[in-house]
Amino acid sequence: MKIAFIGLGNMGSQMARNLIKAGHSLTVYNRTVKRAEALESEGAKVASTPTQAVADAEVLITMLADDAAVEEVLFEPGDAIQTLHEGATHISMSTISVALSKRLADAHQKRGQHYLAATVLGRPDAAEAGKLFIIAAGEPEQIRQCQPLFDVLGQKTFVVGNNAPAANVFKLAANFLITATIEGLAESCAFVRKHDLDQNVFLEFLTGSLFTAPVYRNYGGMIAADKFEPVGFKLPLGFKDNRLLLSAADDVAVPMPLANLVHDRFVTALAHGMSNADWSAIAHIAFQEAGLANGE
Amino acid sequence: MKIAFIGLGNMGSQMARNLIKAGHSLTVYNRTVKRAEALESEGAKVASTPTQAVADAEVLITMLADDAAVEEVLFEPGDAIQTLHEGATHISMSTISVALSKRLADAHQKRGQHYLAATVLGRPDAAEAGKLFIIAAGEPEQIRQCQPLFDVLGQKTFVVGNNAPAANVFKLAANFLITATIEGLAESCAFVRKHDLDQNVFLEFLTGSLFTAPVYRNYGGMIAADKFEPVGFKLPLGFKDNRLLLSAADDVAVPMPLANLVHDRFVTALAHGMSNADWSAIAHIAFQEAGLANGE
Amino acid sequence: MKIAFIGLGNMGSQMARNLIKAGHSLTVYNRTVKRAEALESEGAKVASTPTQAVADAEVLITMLADDAAVEEVLFEPGDAIQTLHEGATHISMSTISVALSKRLADAHQKRGQHYLAATVLGRPDAAEAGKLFIIAAGEPEQIRQCQPLFDVLGQKTFVVGNNAPAANVFKLAANFLITATIEGLAESCAFVRKHDLDQNVFLEFLTGSLFTAPVYRNYGGMIAADKFEPVGFKLPLGFKDNRLLLSAADDVAVPMPLANLVHDRFVTALAHGMSNADWSAIAHIAFQEAGLANGE
Amino acid sequence: MKIAFIGLGNMGSQMARNLIKAGHSLTVYNRTVKRAEALESEGAKVASTPTQAVADAEVLITMLADDAAVEEVLFEPGDAIQTLHEGATHISMSTISVALSKRLADAHQKRGQHYLAATVLGRPDAAEAGKLFIIAAGEPEQIRQCQPLFDVLGQKTFVVGNNAPAANVFKLAANFLITATIEGLAESCAFVRKHDLDQNVFLEFLTGSLFTAPVYRNYGGMIAADKFEPVGFKLPLGFKDNRLLLSAADDVAVPMPLANLVHDRFVTALAHGMSNADWSAIAHIAFQEAGLANGE
Repeated sequence: MKIAFIGLGNMGSQMARNLIKAGHSLTVYNRTVKRAEALESEGAKVASTPTQAVADAEVLITMLADDAAVEEVLFEPGDAIQTLHEGATHISMSTISVALSKRLADAHQKRGQHYLAATVLGRPDAAEAGKLFIIAAGEPEQIRQCQPLFDVLGQKTFVVGNNAPAANVFKLAANFLITATIEGLAESCAFVRKHDLDQNVFLEFLTGSLFTAPVYRNYGGMIAADKFEPVGFKLPLGFKDNRLLLSAADDVAVPMPLANLVHDRFVTALAHGMSNADWSAIAHIAFQEAGLANGE
Repeated sequence: MKIAFIGLGNMGSQMARNLIKAGHSLTVYNRTVKRAEALESEGAKVASTPTQAVADAEVLITMLADDAAVEEVLFEPGDAIQTLHEGATHISMSTISVALSKRLADAHQKRGQHYLAATVLGRPDAAEAGKLFIIAAGEPEQIRQCQPLFDVLGQKTFVVGNNAPAANVFKLAANFLITATIEGLAESCAFVRKHDLDQNVFLEFLTGSLFTAPVYRNYGGMIAADKFEPVGFKLPLGFKDNRLLLSAADDVAVPMPLANLVHDRFVTALAHGMSNADWSAIAHIAFQEAGLANGE
Repeated sequence: MKIAFIGLGNMGSQMARNLIKAGHSLTVYNRTVKRAEALESEGAKVASTPTQAVADAEVLITMLADDAAVEEVLFEPGDAIQTLHEGATHISMSTISVALSKRLADAHQKRGQHYLAATVLGRPDAAEAGKLFIIAAGEPEQIRQCQPLFDVLGQKTFVVGNNAPAANVFKLAANFLITATIEGLAESCAFVRKHDLDQNVFLEFLTGSLFTAPVYRNYGGMIAADKFEPVGFKLPLGFKDNRLLLSAADDVAVPMPLANLVHDRFVTALAHGMSNADWSAIAHIAFQEAGLANGE
Repeated sequence: MKIAFIGLGNMGSQMARNLIKAGHSLTVYNRTVKRAEALESEGAKVASTPTQAVADAEVLITMLADDAAVEEVLFEPGDAIQTLHEGATHISMSTISVALSKRLADAHQKRGQHYLAATVLGRPDAAEAGKLFIIAAGEPEQIRQCQPLFDVLGQKTFVVGNNAPAANVFKLAANFLITATIEGLAESCAFVRKHDLDQNVFLEFLTGSLFTAPVYRNYGGMIAADKFEPVGFKLPLGFKDNRLLLSAADDVAVPMPLANLVHDRFVTALAHGMSNADWSAIAHIAFQEAGLANGE
């Protein structure tokens, strides 16, 4: 397929690369052009504006950092939506607000374009390996047509509704559950450490009994080591997603006290200059409060 | 082995039965004698006092509801510790405070008795099936000798330290992580429901991607249905364990805001007369706050 | 002075009336024209657009419900800022975001207009009596010139800085402290009630000892009665201000867990259909959680 | 009156001194005898055991640090309750648990003794000046007879019920409201500071408008200065009272999320070695989290 791929961060670059390898024709655009050029040698065409990127596309994939970036590309000043062909499909794959996803659904429909939200779960290593989990929502026919792309990018696609924003709701909720797990592990590891017991033994016990899921193994390892590397998803982006969640929760009047607690962890981390850390480093704040911080 | 088994609640009865089936000689004691008599036909001797129960025992297993119950049996007025043979081993399997576990360790040592803490993870159905997870701590030699008993009762034994109270610390932390999962699922399900999306689809997505652990499947099913049955672990007992956790956290100066949040869920549930519900029904409180309560 | 007064809600109407009584020449504008007409008989001119309202004004006072309303009047589509004379002063008196206050400061400066933020503390009865507390910030010369207006509207003016947004920061913080007081009183009254003791005796004790401030007497009376009347400040407006606070706190990386707790009270109240209640009715949510709700 | 005064800490010493000055005959007892001897030169008799202290007393006043201290004096091993005359009155003035107050009420009644709870509000300087607020509960006749003592110690007595533990409930609730005020001030001052505004201006505004109560002025001054001196009430004692509150709230099923938040502040402060600080130093934890800590 002829694909315009916009947004080449840690995740997007890996995803675009996999699509090229799978034989798709990609025109890529990124605000920082260097990241686009890195893909040129692998066969991508590099566009110098969003409009140029989508001029020819059957499918537009956006993997942009936040709402503002998506708005700048699709609406003003980028205005790619005006150039995108009638009948083309925009697949919005990054984590954006439920509200913006609704707005995009409406705007594309007015222009006879299709819109899918297909958010992803997984860190850069999963993106590289084509092992993401994909949460797709939108018209079944379009999802069917885009399934080959999802199969390149992910290990499994969950179709969660006919209404595109459903994928955004699910993604925000899943991210929240990851942070809930991080918080739970952080508090319990602090508890175990201050009883002079070994966190690694604790973690082995957890992941060998009721808590066998990858999320406990991956984040648990970083938390037990109090080392949050590699930086797969930056803390300010985790904070952004948490705010999108809380905003979407306010919209439908759902109090989420645990999400608020996590919110405060993010804010505290940012107040301590941790904006380059992985988002799981909010666990370090729990350690700090318990008087366990190393080297501070 | 000659085993005194004291404490025949939902969990204890199933565990005692499995030990009898495995060929061990059991003398059982329970405050409410009816539950003891139910085991008589299966081959248990029924003692009428704690002292009588332990008179002959090589191993004493306690599976009592709370600290007070353990103290009444071992110390005054039951005073079983005075009768227990030198060289016998007390295996404390229910969830008790870290402080009481320390006190027991000391008291048994003084009398030349052995003490293990071997707490269990799992609900009554797992106890019945001999599929509990066992968290054992104490002297390696005693653990080795008691391993055949653990193999009858559980699917896997985690040996977590030489110091018995370690097993109590781990058990309280694991219970906390279950409640953290319940809270996370409750808030995210409320969020999904109020966006008019299907919680069951959400749950399938979770347990098919990053959240594959049993704890998400078991509790997730109850939460998605807003039906907290069967009642495997009563809400006031969950509240009790949460208080033991917070008390043990205070003792070593670890703030646990998520545990406090769960504490308030329990208190709110009790204020609404839910003392016969399963502990996972704290999720219902989250639904109530979001205006989602059915039939209220 | 020739004053354009825009925004005639519960507070604004009383304030405009007092300015008329004091001899000022008012042109008023309100989206719902009926509220403007009510002031016509008292001597106000009624404008049919924001632009018309400010055409002649030396001073523009805005007392509008939220950021959006202010933007619509000053910027598009109302565009009053284009018509306001060079040298005229805009006094923004309602609770708006710190961010919008900064934007207004810049926009007015560019056009050679003056801008003051002069937020108010007090409910409609205080507005009626000219007994508001006024928190003013901006250039000292302009504050000096507008002081006669403040003296009509309030019992006391606090000048809190040369930079207009300071008044917005202070106002949001003061509102937060009111909600903190409400929450504190709500929890402690629930505690007292469930110990079968008399909340009114409790309140007399508080306000007769360390807690002599009006805020304890006014809100305490409503909380002790579990009756939140009269409705001086609607719950959704209180929620809005709480969100402005949290947003301004995020901007400077200050975690405010108590503000988050209050946030959840507002969300819960809205989930239970309390959007017409006074904002102090968040105390009722605390009573509900404690199982104390009347008529539930 | 012949008074036995037991418990000569920062508060108790000042109170005993005032009773001596007012002409009462005091026999004092303190575990650390040096503090008792300090009062000898002012006219007190020094007892070497609790029993000796109460042998002759018409009134026993206890001002002891915690439940354990009261139990050790009244019950085992001190056993003063056995020696106290029939018809004598025990006035329990320190902050103890509601549960222990009930137990004391019963125990004294059985022995034909009287029991009042008369808790106090105020710091050591207020105790020294005889300006405490006294919260008294118990039989009206006994309160009437002890009123002259209260008049020596305090500026005002609030009689809050016939049932002694009512005074303990009120005291715990009042202490909670002080911590709620501290938390509110801490968060709002952090908010103001990080907006580069002056906390002292903020405080003047607060205490000049709606927040005129002493509690805002006293604690506000320390918080704005981020200096928590003099140490009037030690942080671990504040923590103890917070735990008594939460325990008494659990007993009647009242969730108190704000009290939990304060609990975590105390725990965090203790984890950072602040056990010699004034309890208001929990505000410093809020500053730390906002990245505002000086010198750490």
